[in-house]
Amino acid sequence: MWLFGNRARIPAMTRTETDSMGAIEVPADRYWGAQTQRSLKYFAIGRDVMPRPMIRALGVLKKACALVNAELGKLPEEKRDLITAAADEVVEGKLDDHFPLRVWQTGSGTQTNMNTNEVISNRAIEMAGGEMGSKKPVHPNDDVNMSQSSNDTFPSAMHIAAVEVLEHDLLPACHRFREALVAKRVEFDRIVKIGRTHLQDATPVTFGQEFSGYVVLIDRDIDRIRQTMTGLCDLAIGGTAVGTGLNSHPEFAVRAAAKIAKLTGLPFKSHPNKFAALSAHDEFVYASGALKTLAGTLMKIANDIRWLGSGPRCGLGELALPENEPGSSIMPGKVNPTQCEAMTMVAVQVMGNDAAIGFAGSQGNFELNVFNPVMIHNFLHSVELLSGTMNSFAEHCLEGLKVNRAVVDGYVANSLMLVTALNPHIGYDKAAAIAKKAHHDGISLRAAAIASGHLTAAQFDEWVVPERMTRP
Amino acid sequence: MWLFGNRARIPAMTRTETDSMGAIEVPADRYWGAQTQRSLKYFAIGRDVMPRPMIRALGVLKKACALVNAELGKLPEEKRDLITAAADEVVEGKLDDHFPLRVWQTGSGTQTNMNTNEVISNRAIEMAGGEMGSKKPVHPNDDVNMSQSSNDTFPSAMHIAAVEVLEHDLLPACHRFREALVAKRVEFDRIVKIGRTHLQDATPVTFGQEFSGYVVLIDRDIDRIRQTMTGLCDLAIGGTAVGTGLNSHPEFAVRAAAKIAKLTGLPFKSHPNKFAALSAHDEFVYASGALKTLAGTLMKIANDIRWLGSGPRCGLGELALPENEPGSSIMPGKVNPTQCEAMTMVAVQVMGNDAAIGFAGSQGNFELNVFNPVMIHNFLHSVELLSGTMNSFAEHCLEGLKVNRAVVDGYVANSLMLVTALNPHIGYDKAAAIAKKAHHDGISLRAAAIASGHLTAAQFDEWVVPERMTRP
Amino acid sequence: MWLFGNRARIPAMTRTETDSMGAIEVPADRYWGAQTQRSLKYFAIGRDVMPRPMIRALGVLKKACALVNAELGKLPEEKRDLITAAADEVVEGKLDDHFPLRVWQTGSGTQTNMNTNEVISNRAIEMAGGEMGSKKPVHPNDDVNMSQSSNDTFPSAMHIAAVEVLEHDLLPACHRFREALVAKRVEFDRIVKIGRTHLQDATPVTFGQEFSGYVVLIDRDIDRIRQTMTGLCDLAIGGTAVGTGLNSHPEFAVRAAAKIAKLTGLPFKSHPNKFAALSAHDEFVYASGALKTLAGTLMKIANDIRWLGSGPRCGLGELALPENEPGSSIMPGKVNPTQCEAMTMVAVQVMGNDAAIGFAGSQGNFELNVFNPVMIHNFLHSVELLSGTMNSFAEHCLEGLKVNRAVVDGYVANSLMLVTALNPHIGYDKAAAIAKKAHHDGISLRAAAIASGHLTAAQFDEWVVPERMTRP
Amino acid sequence: MWLFGNRARIPAMTRTETDSMGAIEVPADRYWGAQTQRSLKYFAIGRDVMPRPMIRALGVLKKACALVNAELGKLPEEKRDLITAAADEVVEGKLDDHFPLRVWQTGSGTQTNMNTNEVISNRAIEMAGGEMGSKKPVHPNDDVNMSQSSNDTFPSAMHIAAVEVLEHDLLPACHRFREALVAKRVEFDRIVKIGRTHLQDATPVTFGQEFSGYVVLIDRDIDRIRQTMTGLCDLAIGGTAVGTGLNSHPEFAVRAAAKIAKLTGLPFKSHPNKFAALSAHDEFVYASGALKTLAGTLMKIANDIRWLGSGPRCGLGELALPENEPGSSIMPGKVNPTQCEAMTMVAVQVMGNDAAIGFAGSQGNFELNVFNPVMIHNFLHSVELLSGTMNSFAEHCLEGLKVNRAVVDGYVANSLMLVTALNPHIGYDKAAAIAKKAHHDGISLRAAAIASGHLTAAQFDEWVVPERMTRP
Repeated sequence: MWLFGNRARIPAMTRTETDSMGAIEVPADRYWGAQTQRSLKYFAIGRDVMPRPMIRALGVLKKACALVNAELGKLPEEKRDLITAAADEVVEGKLDDHFPLRVWQTGSGTQTNMNTNEVISNRAIEMAGGEMGSKKPVHPNDDVNMSQSSNDTFPSAMHIAAVEVLEHDLLPACHRFREALVAKRVEFDRIVKIGRTHLQDATPVTFGQEFSGYVVLIDRDIDRIRQTMTGLCDLAIGGTAVGTGLNSHPEFAVRAAAKIAKLTGLPFKSHPNKFAALSAHDEFVYASGALKTLAGTLMKIANDIRWLGSGPRCGLGELALPENEPGSSIMPGKVNPTQCEAMTMVAVQVMGNDAAIGFAGSQGNFELNVFNPVMIHNFLHSVELLSGTMNSFAEHCLEGLKVNRAVVDGYVANSLMLVTALNPHIGYDKAAAIAKKAHHDGISLRAAAIASGHLTAAQFDEWVVPERMTRP
Repeated sequence: MWLFGNRARIPAMTRTETDSMGAIEVPADRYWGAQTQRSLKYFAIGRDVMPRPMIRALGVLKKACALVNAELGKLPEEKRDLITAAADEVVEGKLDDHFPLRVWQTGSGTQTNMNTNEVISNRAIEMAGGEMGSKKPVHPNDDVNMSQSSNDTFPSAMHIAAVEVLEHDLLPACHRFREALVAKRVEFDRIVKIGRTHLQDATPVTFGQEFSGYVVLIDRDIDRIRQTMTGLCDLAIGGTAVGTGLNSHPEFAVRAAAKIAKLTGLPFKSHPNKFAALSAHDEFVYASGALKTLAGTLMKIANDIRWLGSGPRCGLGELALPENEPGSSIMPGKVNPTQCEAMTMVAVQVMGNDAAIGFAGSQGNFELNVFNPVMIHNFLHSVELLSGTMNSFAEHCLEGLKVNRAVVDGYVANSLMLVTALNPHIGYDKAAAIAKKAHHDGISLRAAAIASGHLTAAQFDEWVVPERMTRP
Repeated sequence: MWLFGNRARIPAMTRTETDSMGAIEVPADRYWGAQTQRSLKYFAIGRDVMPRPMIRALGVLKKACALVNAELGKLPEEKRDLITAAADEVVEGKLDDHFPLRVWQTGSGTQTNMNTNEVISNRAIEMAGGEMGSKKPVHPNDDVNMSQSSNDTFPSAMHIAAVEVLEHDLLPACHRFREALVAKRVEFDRIVKIGRTHLQDATPVTFGQEFSGYVVLIDRDIDRIRQTMTGLCDLAIGGTAVGTGLNSHPEFAVRAAAKIAKLTGLPFKSHPNKFAALSAHDEFVYASGALKTLAGTLMKIANDIRWLGSGPRCGLGELALPENEPGSSIMPGKVNPTQCEAMTMVAVQVMGNDAAIGFAGSQGNFELNVFNPVMIHNFLHSVELLSGTMNSFAEHCLEGLKVNRAVVDGYVANSLMLVTALNPHIGYDKAAAIAKKAHHDGISLRAAAIASGHLTAAQFDEWVVPERMTRP
Repeated sequence: MWLFGNRARIPAMTRTETDSMGAIEVPADRYWGAQTQRSLKYFAIGRDVMPRPMIRALGVLKKACALVNAELGKLPEEKRDLITAAADEVVEGKLDDHFPLRVWQTGSGTQTNMNTNEVISNRAIEMAGGEMGSKKPVHPNDDVNMSQSSNDTFPSAMHIAAVEVLEHDLLPACHRFREALVAKRVEFDRIVKIGRTHLQDATPVTFGQEFSGYVVLIDRDIDRIRQTMTGLCDLAIGGTAVGTGLNSHPEFAVRAAAKIAKLTGLPFKSHPNKFAALSAHDEFVYASGALKTLAGTLMKIANDIRWLGSGPRCGLGELALPENEPGSSIMPGKVNPTQCEAMTMVAVQVMGNDAAIGFAGSQGNFELNVFNPVMIHNFLHSVELLSGTMNSFAEHCLEGLKVNRAVVDGYVANSLMLVTALNPHIGYDKAAAIAKKAHHDGISLRAAAIASGHLTAAQFDEWVVPERMTRP
């Protein structure tokens, strides 16, 4: 690739590893084995590597499986201890440099499953004082992958990774963002402002009401994300190659899911139908729909805030956003709604990611959907960006947000839509005529109302009270 | 429009109607009024008219509001009776020819709300023996639209329409489709067949297992659709113009939602925050995500079935699909998987509709999202197509589906992937060598296994039993 | 379908028609035959029927094929004359009521091709005084479909329909929209206004410059649409069932395309590779990309105009949009940017349609892509909506657009971003300090500049001239 | 972020840099300045950094601008030489570690433009022996950014980057992929095989014909990409802040574009309308449409090849794909179509990226579209993945592709669709009856034909010749 840069890494020393295709040289200082090395050769596509939460999840899974295999008498205690020790290092991130594979590999994620098997095997061998590549005393397939197939491990790891980032990254970010909105709802509670529909002046609302709407939108997003996590908590592990559980113990599926739940503290359980669990990933399509919905909410809120902050002199000017950085390399003194821009760009990206996830989810054939890596790549990307932008927006935009009281009050005083308060008294048609006259003559609504002869000045003042118009 | 045809309708007789813009001629035999007529003039865009379920929903809503306004002492009983009588005709579809407006109008749906107000007003006037267009005794704004705004009525009608079609069309179609799958799961239960992953031969499964996967996928789709209906049951009515409820009675919102629930027999209730309810339609984005997930499930199932039915002599040939119609205008005797094709085309359309809904949902500004018509148009389109294709597929494809037993058995007998049953006995690496030898020499797995010296013929026959490979 | 209405039509009288599946009753007053009738039975999905431009295109195609078959000595003159006479009626739209089939049918469009063959056959038989359903003297397959297959006719008709609507509907609408923009560019040419970037005040531009940008955006859209028409002019006809041209004369492909070009006056020609032409419809994916690009342009322009017209008293208020209809059913006197709303909803729909087209286009297998109807349905929908909204917007929004000169001038006078003109004289950093001081102290830029001591009042007045800031 | 890892980098030593917001500490060993440092603080969102081709393009642009500013007498030669020397290092990739900013920043890309200005300024200062952060002798705004604004530089760099990667990465990859297809077209040219439409057996084709279709699809993709490059060659530079060119020399725009053309060897030129060029990026939406079209082509080809290679014993089995790596961690000896899977996943991603680009492209307001970084991020991502997967597929799948001649011949001999050759002799209806009889009785087509009495054995053998059926 001429322009995207040369990413080759030429290792000084190698050792020989083998798989069913034969022998291959791998870098001496890496734990990975033959299949990982082949994947590096055959899949030098792009620069997206398997995301960290997936590596962690595979570590959790391999540990759980070793523990259950030992419980069921299939794996000797010594091997169990070596595997779990090495798996712990995968979980903790200590071996991240040994997971070099691209997203753009086999669609089952087999190569990353084998990458995990190989790294754990070789690290375990190293701990046991053995020779890396010898597959003794811990074999990557027969021991680390015991009772498993890529077809159940990789989807299981996808679910583990997804639920962990939703629980530990996205939901906390939603709550932080929500709290920042609540603080502003309280701070601005009673400030009456002009409402706008169709971008046109409408009847008054309070800032507290406007922000209460945002809070409720986020509340419902949180509820939706939680709803979608239920399905994501069902794990494919135990289905092995095609969903039948061939080569696994009958109790393996339920025990493995329970072990993962224990290790993560999250309510994972065995998927009730492994054929469904391997051949489709509808839970991701649905959960991505909840992320897209959140993205839409954020786009709406970010747009509202940047529009209300537009100006400083030729825009709406109701809000003053924090001035974090210079806004222009040519226009001195310009300050831009940059947090809003980052947030709306994230929203756009999440919509694109959702399109990819939905398409991929529909393309399964028979016993397997082979679009796993692209699905989890996009899903985790969406979660990371949404979490990041909500945290950033809360801290760098919402917390310093101010109301320009003079501007806000001026709009309310000038607006023609206060006329709506006259409907119950004089009817829609007469009220409309008054508003039109005020607009076309450029006079105040009060003046036009009195001139109409349909009501007196006293009646106008009694009936048209902006603050009272903000409730039924 | 040169090619899309001239859709103009030139009425022989007209009467004069008026609104706040002045007078305008409308066809004498139509109940609509001035604002509908203006919309016809200004929005001659495309041919998509407001879908029937929306018209019905607006009828329900107008009736409920009249009843509540009367209960609250704001509307005289005589007007109430006239409005509800006319609204009943709207609900029943008797006045469908009086709702000519396009989807591509104002983004709040105001013109269709006014179309409803005008039709009910004029029909009520007619019932009362009055003069159409006189707005007496029933005024379209002051009476039919009392305590309402397009900004709360149209979104409320969107929710009513959506929940009604989900409940009465989509979920029944899901259940019918599911029952047809269950029947085949039972019928084909014990037939062992080759599994396929990556399109390549894998270890055996039963047809019952494969179809059980489909059943569970649909079960979960049904659950998801039900989950999304909860949010859709929250109604905006009572928010009026900007969410504050201006010009409505404090009890109106809750009473109106309860009345709609009673009239429809569905669990509608008042949305807890009207600012959220008017300014965003996240419930639709989320619910469309559930529809998209269902579309993905259907694409997967339809693809599986047409691939398994491919042939008759040069394809997989495991299934025989019903022969409903000639398949080719040039190749005699050809029969094609046409129900699968209709279903996959529907899936594609639903994904496109979902993209439109997600985009539209993100574009709200301030107190209102003005992409209402395009959202409900796409949502109802998706529901109608999904319902239609599932009903059709169940009746015209699934019910007549047969297994070609000879083909199915032949594949199982020939497959190399039965070798997987040897893993626990001789290990992955030796098993791999046996499978490779059989493949490259074109011999049977049994022959290659025995030739390998790693096991005896008797062991092979004991260990490799396809039926037993379909469980853990 | 409970809610979408009962669309069944129970004919009083029937006649018997036959195809290779046997006999079936069809309505006596319809020209269609057995295969159409079967499709009605098996594909009662949704309400989308094959669009009119497709029916017309199939008429053109059948006529062209009959003429060429006769030229090549394969079809007797008498049959030729009967077929072309009936085909002319299809072209003219006289037989539209005889094309009832849904979009959601077989993915090759075979049933609509047969619908055309059957209608032309029976109408020709009728003209010849024969018995409908007898297939004599004009057989639907052997004569009307001679040298053809659905696999080459339907894609050819898709191309014909697409090019015709682009040429006769979309491009004229683009030009009309462009001319309306040009008229405003000229009318508003020298009016200096504040520029806005990031929604924030920026340096001045003229309205003429702003509208010149819109004009150029449309110009480039027109160029792009023209570019994509080149590929769409290549026709599959002559490929027959799988691209080989089996059962057609070697000269048929080229002659048929030339005949279609002559009949339509458009530069159609034979596709250079029929295997490509049948198995993929990349030209539609690409052309839809040009439609999506146009949709994006329109969304930008419509958004700009509604924002500049926002108010009347609490928005930007630089433009006054024509008041076409009452804007609110509750807020008297409200006028909304409804043409902008229709246009932005259309843009959203076109993006959704594009997603469906791209997905469908990727799903071909082997010799055929069987997502034809969904592709052409979405494509024609996009064209119809884009054409309609541009015509409507030009007439009902652009032509009556006015500038509120007082508002525009006031913004320019007040803006702080005029400070940019000082950069070349005092440098960015000092200029930034002046703008910040003016902003924070709420004073004029001129006052802040003089107070800074970096320049004199005379220098300020010489250097800061808004009109001069609108060019390099 | 709990799970995505801690990416903080705590520098040991810092220096003080300043901008219009004040002073800030930056790492002593980095060339960037205050604005870059602020962006790192305020935009810690995700891990996507500005792609390398953008950094290179900004280097090219800054060099070109310095040269032109010097030619026009605005920049002293000494500064020119310092800036161009530092810019050359940016172009060459030597300073990549000094460009840490995220994609998720301000939507104009201002912060990356300033990052470039700051790095070039400080590196130039260092070369001149000055003090970093002193802005002397080379000021980041006044000198490096002279005659420029982020609003014209960033879009210009987007265009430069896009055209460079299309020219130097994507088109070469398309050609390599095409050549590999051509090689197989030639190698397999005369092998007759069964055609398949609707996945069902159809009339015969040759492998050469099938691959000729693929070649032509790619040819047309190449043409489309070239078409879209024309618009991308138009550069915004010279428009400065809002398109007026304020603070730039009247000749600057044309000269800068010409200089960039000279430096890159690519046909860049000045955009004819800078208002259009800043406020919309329709060229990217359109060009992404061409990428999406290519993605669809690749999905179709990759699907065909993996289906034709399905098996080895229970699939279509016409092709043998190279065995690059073990296919399964549980099923020994399994080989999967992994290059096809990577390619189809890339196709899905490109469709998602296209959705994001189209959405972003529609969201411009007034003088600026502030979705620049998300657009170029997705565009370059698509190009990198498409290039990578085509190169990989050509080398690792196409080049080693083999035909299983026995399987291919067997299908042709068995197929019922050879009956189509009888249409011209006995008519469609009788031919259909023969095919149906053969199918239902499980006998050969020849036997059924003779039994029908419509033709003799000799006629059958004369009329039904598969090879002859592959042409008109």
